[in-house]
Amino acid sequence: MALTGVLRPGHVQLRVLDLAAAVKHYSQVLGLWETARDPQGRVYFKAWDEHDHHSVVLREAEAAGMDFMGFRVDSTATLKKLADNVKASGLATEMQWVEAGEMLKTGERFRFTTPTGHVIELYAEKEKVGNMMPLENPEVYPENLKGMSPTRFDHCLLYGDDLDGTVKLFTEVLGFKLAEQVVAGPDRLQIAAFLTCSNKPHDVAFIRHPEKNKFHHASFILDNWGEVLKAADIITRHRVSLDIGPTRHGITRGETIYFFDPSGNRNEVFSGGYIAYPDRPTLTWTDDELGRAIFYHDRKLNEAFLSVVT
Amino acid sequence: MALTGVLRPGHVQLRVLDLAAAVKHYSQVLGLWETARDPQGRVYFKAWDEHDHHSVVLREAEAAGMDFMGFRVDSTATLKKLADNVKASGLATEMQWVEAGEMLKTGERFRFTTPTGHVIELYAEKEKVGNMMPLENPEVYPENLKGMSPTRFDHCLLYGDDLDGTVKLFTEVLGFKLAEQVVAGPDRLQIAAFLTCSNKPHDVAFIRHPEKNKFHHASFILDNWGEVLKAADIITRHRVSLDIGPTRHGITRGETIYFFDPSGNRNEVFSGGYIAYPDRPTLTWTDDELGRAIFYHDRKLNEAFLSVVT
Amino acid sequence: MALTGVLRPGHVQLRVLDLAAAVKHYSQVLGLWETARDPQGRVYFKAWDEHDHHSVVLREAEAAGMDFMGFRVDSTATLKKLADNVKASGLATEMQWVEAGEMLKTGERFRFTTPTGHVIELYAEKEKVGNMMPLENPEVYPENLKGMSPTRFDHCLLYGDDLDGTVKLFTEVLGFKLAEQVVAGPDRLQIAAFLTCSNKPHDVAFIRHPEKNKFHHASFILDNWGEVLKAADIITRHRVSLDIGPTRHGITRGETIYFFDPSGNRNEVFSGGYIAYPDRPTLTWTDDELGRAIFYHDRKLNEAFLSVVT
Amino acid sequence: MALTGVLRPGHVQLRVLDLAAAVKHYSQVLGLWETARDPQGRVYFKAWDEHDHHSVVLREAEAAGMDFMGFRVDSTATLKKLADNVKASGLATEMQWVEAGEMLKTGERFRFTTPTGHVIELYAEKEKVGNMMPLENPEVYPENLKGMSPTRFDHCLLYGDDLDGTVKLFTEVLGFKLAEQVVAGPDRLQIAAFLTCSNKPHDVAFIRHPEKNKFHHASFILDNWGEVLKAADIITRHRVSLDIGPTRHGITRGETIYFFDPSGNRNEVFSGGYIAYPDRPTLTWTDDELGRAIFYHDRKLNEAFLSVVT
Ligand SMILES: [Fe+2]
Ligand SMILES: [Fe+2]
Ligand SMILES: [Fe+2]
Ligand SMILES: [Fe+2]
Repeated sequence: MALTGVLRPGHVQLRVLDLAAAVKHYSQVLGLWETARDPQGRVYFKAWDEHDHHSVVLREAEAAGMDFMGFRVDSTATLKKLADNVKASGLATEMQWVEAGEMLKTGERFRFTTPTGHVIELYAEKEKVGNMMPLENPEVYPENLKGMSPTRFDHCLLYGDDLDGTVKLFTEVLGFKLAEQVVAGPDRLQIAAFLTCSNKPHDVAFIRHPEKNKFHHASFILDNWGEVLKAADIITRHRVSLDIGPTRHGITRGETIYFFDPSGNRNEVFSGGYIAYPDRPTLTWTDDELGRAIFYHDRKLNEAFLSVVT
Repeated sequence: MALTGVLRPGHVQLRVLDLAAAVKHYSQVLGLWETARDPQGRVYFKAWDEHDHHSVVLREAEAAGMDFMGFRVDSTATLKKLADNVKASGLATEMQWVEAGEMLKTGERFRFTTPTGHVIELYAEKEKVGNMMPLENPEVYPENLKGMSPTRFDHCLLYGDDLDGTVKLFTEVLGFKLAEQVVAGPDRLQIAAFLTCSNKPHDVAFIRHPEKNKFHHASFILDNWGEVLKAADIITRHRVSLDIGPTRHGITRGETIYFFDPSGNRNEVFSGGYIAYPDRPTLTWTDDELGRAIFYHDRKLNEAFLSVVT
Repeated sequence: MALTGVLRPGHVQLRVLDLAAAVKHYSQVLGLWETARDPQGRVYFKAWDEHDHHSVVLREAEAAGMDFMGFRVDSTATLKKLADNVKASGLATEMQWVEAGEMLKTGERFRFTTPTGHVIELYAEKEKVGNMMPLENPEVYPENLKGMSPTRFDHCLLYGDDLDGTVKLFTEVLGFKLAEQVVAGPDRLQIAAFLTCSNKPHDVAFIRHPEKNKFHHASFILDNWGEVLKAADIITRHRVSLDIGPTRHGITRGETIYFFDPSGNRNEVFSGGYIAYPDRPTLTWTDDELGRAIFYHDRKLNEAFLSVVT
Repeated sequence: MALTGVLRPGHVQLRVLDLAAAVKHYSQVLGLWETARDPQGRVYFKAWDEHDHHSVVLREAEAAGMDFMGFRVDSTATLKKLADNVKASGLATEMQWVEAGEMLKTGERFRFTTPTGHVIELYAEKEKVGNMMPLENPEVYPENLKGMSPTRFDHCLLYGDDLDGTVKLFTEVLGFKLAEQVVAGPDRLQIAAFLTCSNKPHDVAFIRHPEKNKFHHASFILDNWGEVLKAADIITRHRVSLDIGPTRHGITRGETIYFFDPSGNRNEVFSGGYIAYPDRPTLTWTDDELGRAIFYHDRKLNEAFLSVVT
């Protein structure tokens, strides 16, 4: 199989301060579909075109932020092998197996903490529940979509301290490719890394930051720039807190808008971007062009984008 | 690396009746960039966002059609291994190595004929010439784009007799996945197969057809539905022969338009489509829904689409 | 006031064979809002951004087609004056005043038959019911839009015999301007006239045709080409009979799709087109370019478009 | 004729600090076509779909800003009549006739100063030079468009002190309609007025401001939201100073982006907006919703937008 190993970001578990408000946001504004609640009280969601049981899990907690991000791998054999490789790498800490079923409809997960302090999981099995259309003679999208209705959970951007270690772990152990990076200063210190395990321009990204384990945003993919405008209109109709957009990224070329869930976790919906291949040269941005790299049109960063993380 | 083996359709060589007219079409209408001409008189083109030296090669000949389609693999080691596997499979004929340089800026190619009679090549090396923008601090697209200016050559659709053999070769030997298929009659005979080696919904597709080695279309990818309209406008401005569109496919969900080069070879430009993963269930269409599968809006096939191949 | 006299197409009354099926089509597929039913059994609809009580009226009958089309004029004084002018012109027949209230929420209407046999009405008063949003601090569109949800009823295309007489009536008596026309043969006989009373490229259009009083289509305006695609998708989801599209008109430049209601009355939804001014030169198309004039991309007419009228 | 009296904004004359830089901006970035230069050194431009000789005139000067804005009226008779009415109104000052030819290809203009201190002209004649396509069997747009290539000059937004007087002049004397307004405080003082003389949501707008005769922006119309993105990309490619956007207005619903010419004059390109009619109710926004009224997504005003005028 030409797409092997780590296949995709499969889920993200977010902490929210008020579960009811969060459920309303993720279902009515973002337009995800609630698929389950578990005995712990967690609420599970999927985007409509995902076939797997869930991609977003919300947990009520005292502080917002990300509990962990999970990546689906191609098979149980790969899961074992990657777990061994992560252990052997000496780059991860707090490694453990989480038993099948701890997360609903999901097989056992290998969990570890990256050098930037983020909890990452690998797993090989999650129940297929379909994309709300038959597998034979389907339509092109389901009826009754609501809210922004992205097709898929796409990626997260995470902030942490030991960027070098995390990039090494993702590229050398997990098989990701550095699609784009930002370097700073005369020594060209890497301060941002956009990593892909697929044809998408990024599946996860990291920014160098003094604190460990910070969450910048979870991102969901839309079909096109017209859907970005519709998302912006929905943000205002629901009086959701807007961060920035509609605009375009220089990095990945994506068309984007950022906003906050009621707990202050940042969401992104976006469209576009190029088709990434392993042999496509890595693009590099220098910090004097950081504004244009992040917000191609404004060419400057807004304060909130840099400093507000959960 | 998570994307391994066969990476992508890397080139297609087409026969044209009048080279000058064809060069004008592929450069001014389609908007590819001419990158070279070789001593044989072949003309090489690339789409703007491809980094490799070329993806379309035109050769003047007595009859239109496709000489061969080439796929880029991830490494020389993979090339050797896949060549061995193809040989071992007993599914291919007329196998040969074409020496490096026979095609400009391209390493050695392993060539074989599929059960449907199509000549397919695998290769691991082609010179990178860039996408007309720097690798440091680029813009989001180059200036002076002309014509439809697709970002990439995307796939071909090919017609031939032994569909079963070719599908077996692509899935079992070359690592492709069957993303969608059409089946006919009470026995559900497979009459069309859409195959992917990536996150794209298809990288090559085959239709069951009485004759061997027929070419239906070469397709190029655009950014969005607005670009499909622009392509349609360009088709009329240049009085290019339109086949059908703008419309949408049921299969792949892509937004599309088909037209003919001056020699009668069919071209497609399209946008959209879902993100394919190896574990996404294969979609099946039945022949009574074939019209909607191919042209989602018209829900019937036009005569030319079915019968005109080169 | 700079926009005076005849302001706009205000309503069209259509005959349908099965009222329930028609109501479903106009409300769920087209996405109009039902605003009333009258003692005669007629059903009234408005598009969401119209402030007037209705723009489409359906009447169950033995044969499909258009009963009449009504134009709103700027005042009662203008209504009287235009009625006098129509009478004085000698161009209209079957002139009569229809009393206020015969059509719900609508003032008295001056009705006449054009030389092409179409029943046209002028009226000055219809109750304002708003566009479903407050007049103070509104949103940009209402929630819960369904179906294609055009913003307005835009125009009709009508077929009839004495095109010269009708064009004379609309331009010399009612103050319309000939925005575009089609002429045929060496004598350049006018065979189509696109007439505007506003900044829109057309408010009504007529085609020369052997029979009197035929109805080709009623058209509704969408925001953009992306909405035309969405309309096309809705057509297929509801298995509505498609005529042609998505495509573009050469005449008016509009982006368009045509389809049939369950009784065989043709509908159009479209977007785009230029801003028309009274001093903009009339555009002329010759019959050898008629295909491109009507369907800019196909450059040929489909049989149904020419011959199917109700 | 249903569209009578004042037809449209016909031209705006802007002062620029460096004519060469300005010409480059208006031709290559905005994408207007230079049509003439006059003995005074002024440079004339038109947008591609305007048939009149020019709509933008640049004059090199010590300070940026607007010299005057001109409106085309339907006839010489109307010009005389409106001039008389302006004189009789007592609302205008510094009234004068400017002789035909003082502005190239333009008939005599009646010039006056509004209560807000802006110089406004009315004229009835300007040479038609066409929209770069034939009047018989044209294409839908010309080839070789460059830059943002708006179809038309659309409106200006002007700042000045005596808003009441200017609104009275435009509505009671010149026949404009108040499409939307902003009111402030418990007394609902009108602080902004959006005025139309057509089906467009605005043809000119005024903001209450302590100084007389300030210029906020000249605006040009694009076809759609995709063109707004393209404009944003062009702004960055040419390193043009961006004010804000892409975004949407609450007022008019338009999709928009603002930027500055090299002299600091603000430009807007936008698309969309509703179809305005004289009987459409005036929309009112209160100052506590001013942010959303102006920038529907951000729901707050940026400092530059409010304070930077020329
Ligand atoms: Fe992101
Ligand atoms: Fe295709
Ligand atoms: Fe129409
Ligand atoms: Fe504006």
